Amino acid sequence: MNGEPLTILLVEDNPDHAELVMRNMEDFQVANTINLVEDGEAALDYLHGRGAYADRKQFPMPHLMLLDLRLPKVDGLEVLKQVKSDAYLRALPVIILTTSDAERDLAMSHEFHANSYVTKPVNFDEFSKLLKDLGFYWLAWNKKPW
Amino acid sequence: MNGEPLTILLVEDNPDHAELVMRNMEDFQVANTINLVEDGEAALDYLHGRGAYADRKQFPMPHLMLLDLRLPKVDGLEVLKQVKSDAYLRALPVIILTTSDAERDLAMSHEFHANSYVTKPVNFDEFSKLLKDLGFYWLAWNKKPW
Repeated sequence: MNGEPLTILLVEDNPDHAELVMRNMEDFQVANTINLVEDGEAALDYLHGRGAYADRKQFPMPHLMLLDLRLPKVDGLEVLKQVKSDAYLRALPVIILTTSDAERDLAMSHEFHANSYVTKPVNFDEFSKLLKDLGFYWLAWNKKPW
Repeated sequence: MNGEPLTILLVEDNPDHAELVMRNMEDFQVANTINLVEDGEAALDYLHGRGAYADRKQFPMPHLMLLDLRLPKVDGLEVLKQVKSDAYLRALPVIILTTSDAERDLAMSHEFHANSYVTKPVNFDEFSKLLKDLGFYWLAWNKKPW
């Protein structure tokens, strides 16, 4: 971990889900910073350090991205595709975190090389446990992308 | 989980590491079956159900592959590349589990779309904890490939 601050980029347009993820991740202290963006265009701008996200001090490169699929402007599968076809960005672990159980979403996520695909549990305690396990696995065990 | 038997394919030529992984995974009961192959050629034969691995009852499709990099016959990066360029097999989560910290290994693993890259902890208790967290995350939370 080298004592570096760990950052999660959360891409989520449902405010209830976003709050649940952020509150849990803060409670578990798996990351130092969680930055929220609410559509796919903002996610890509953040990753490329463009426009409103040009300041890397305020918006550091994330070590993990939690990506919803149904998003305004640019949808989650397109964000995934662009990240995984970029020689630098593809090192970023992208976890699809969605309510969708649709075969097509899963198949396309595999085609575009999502690192992992997780469906949001309906039960609050289960969701909380998922976030703890997920945050810990990806930020403590998986090798950092940069 | 649907009560289906969960299978891990462990690709590891170091007998001490293989034993450690298998014993821990059995203790934690995260999977029903762990099948070990000791080189990359056998890993590909297993996944394609070829030769000695033609019987899918005895050698069921795994839900997770733990893949070492330095392997006899066909090396781990080549196995990874072949799995991730196959439209069916690419759904299989491939976790690189290695002693290597080399930048090139990490970069190539990203290029060939490994799901995750984890270095083996030297400390026994740490290794044990890793296997528990890893097995649980991938087999309980990550959406099954088939």
